[in-house]
Amino acid sequence: MVSECQESLGTVAVVGLGLIGGSLARALHAAGVAVAGFDADPATREAAAAAGIDTVDDLAELRGREVELAVLAVPLRAIERTAEVLAEVLPAGATLTDVGSAKAAVRGAIFRAGLSSRYVGAHPMAGTEQSGFSASTETLLSGAAWAVTIDGEPSSAYEPEVRRHVDRVLALITGVMRGRALVLTDDDHDAAVARVSHVPHVLAAELLAGAAQPPLAAVALALAAGSFRDGTRVARTDPARTQAMIEHNAAWVASAVRQAASDLLLLADDLEAEASTSWFFDRRPLPAPQALEAGPGEGPVLPRADLVGWTADWRSELLAAGRQARFVVGVDAAGVQLDPSR
Amino acid sequence: MVSECQESLGTVAVVGLGLIGGSLARALHAAGVAVAGFDADPATREAAAAAGIDTVDDLAELRGREVELAVLAVPLRAIERTAEVLAEVLPAGATLTDVGSAKAAVRGAIFRAGLSSRYVGAHPMAGTEQSGFSASTETLLSGAAWAVTIDGEPSSAYEPEVRRHVDRVLALITGVMRGRALVLTDDDHDAAVARVSHVPHVLAAELLAGAAQPPLAAVALALAAGSFRDGTRVARTDPARTQAMIEHNAAWVASAVRQAASDLLLLADDLEAEASTSWFFDRRPLPAPQALEAGPGEGPVLPRADLVGWTADWRSELLAAGRQARFVVGVDAAGVQLDPSR
Repeated sequence: MVSECQESLGTVAVVGLGLIGGSLARALHAAGVAVAGFDADPATREAAAAAGIDTVDDLAELRGREVELAVLAVPLRAIERTAEVLAEVLPAGATLTDVGSAKAAVRGAIFRAGLSSRYVGAHPMAGTEQSGFSASTETLLSGAAWAVTIDGEPSSAYEPEVRRHVDRVLALITGVMRGRALVLTDDDHDAAVARVSHVPHVLAAELLAGAAQPPLAAVALALAAGSFRDGTRVARTDPARTQAMIEHNAAWVASAVRQAASDLLLLADDLEAEASTSWFFDRRPLPAPQALEAGPGEGPVLPRADLVGWTADWRSELLAAGRQARFVVGVDAAGVQLDPSR
Repeated sequence: MVSECQESLGTVAVVGLGLIGGSLARALHAAGVAVAGFDADPATREAAAAAGIDTVDDLAELRGREVELAVLAVPLRAIERTAEVLAEVLPAGATLTDVGSAKAAVRGAIFRAGLSSRYVGAHPMAGTEQSGFSASTETLLSGAAWAVTIDGEPSSAYEPEVRRHVDRVLALITGVMRGRALVLTDDDHDAAVARVSHVPHVLAAELLAGAAQPPLAAVALALAAGSFRDGTRVARTDPARTQAMIEHNAAWVASAVRQAASDLLLLADDLEAEASTSWFFDRRPLPAPQALEAGPGEGPVLPRADLVGWTADWRSELLAAGRQARFVVGVDAAGVQLDPSR
């Protein structure tokens, strides 16, 4: 799979060489893929070059590089401007993807830059509380679970082109990056990630702030043990980065946060009334994923085969598999392979 | 310090041999302290005996054991009943302590059992998400931070006796257990622990339940990465145990949970209004502990010496040190030694 993938991928441009972009560039370089790295910061470009990564000092230099796939790994506020530049310098058939944690906002920026037909969203579920190229490693993304997002509706004019872009991004993830991918709509991604990635950051920040409030802040922090350290670890992330991440998925995070606040108020009421709180604490065991998702008549039919062929229905079938948490583990000319374990 | 402590402690009765009681009994036994362990469950007593711990099959057997210190390590619902039995079998001068995570509720139960003059609260800030003697280890409590709670008001009739009980509990913690202790009132303890120990359990349970809610539960859980795993670790505790812990500190937890809910609702409002949320995420850096606690004219004067002598003011001075997060690190005939690093 790796060698097949390496043959099919031309040069990969990695634009933005922070924690995620840097780790991606390092992994691709180590696997023998041709990489062209760029970062707006000259010192970061230098550090990347020193790590053996081929860099360009200006995005215009990508013109001569036969880029097949460009990965936007810049902050969301820079996506639109960067995409506009890439629209000038990438070959017509090049694929555009990204690594951001909120997908609808990125697709909006890409759309405004006129590149939506060649964009496939991607989000590796990996990271650390550090940031910058100096924190990036060759292995950070190795074997990670990724989300890959596509438009729910086929756009007939571009359908074969879109399929090729999806193929390429899935090949990158499941091939050279040895990962696995759930194919989702932007909205499904953003709603799910709000709950498992963004709300944890919100609650960690609240936990830390709550403990640090007078009176008794010194006592509280002095007595803090494992549950507090675990619960606040991600609050040690750069707060500006966390804030940006949350604000870019504002609607879904707001909805999840409102639900949490509502549950917490009911809990406080019951605690004050000395009523039982088992409804709050004993919400497990979790139902099996299938039971949670597959109500009768809801949504598309579960693909039973482990292969989704490149037929006319590829889009709805991949999305149906994604909604049922079936990971893509490989891709080739025949189609997309799903995790056989489900 | 260790040998001094071993000389001064007679037999320590450990009543309840679960995770904390079992770990305490193992550590004391390993340090050469005479231990008499009891658990209501015969299989647990057998396991403890197999681990070399001297056990009794009935609390009445403690009569002949010259118990100087009895540690209640049973669930809160069993505290009052157990204390009533101990009142019958302990020597008149024996000290009573416990290891529970909420102190006012324990003191209430001990008061009803008629033992409040010899009770000193204790709470080691250590644990795991497991429970039972099989999860206990000799090192779990080694070097832990403890809270030790006393009545804020001196009770003149018993003052010298109370001082002796406090001395004994501090000697156990800072001597043979090689730990350190903050001396607090029950209320200060319960308020602080609500924020750094109980609220983390509440938020972890909410995080897990939020992610597991349909729709998209399978997707959300499949994409969960480090922030979610860290934030929900303590939700893997036995939910009944968590629920009991929270309900026994209901008033303080309710107040902290209400504050969190209120902050979360303001955050949701701002996210929906596309307003800045920096007020929520950028509440750091934390003020220094002294700055948080020492408003002019507030509370007792900070003890400047590293030693609090056994003078008439020992109670208010130890509580003042505790409120400023100054740990007790040793105790002897001259008085109580405070952590010199602060």
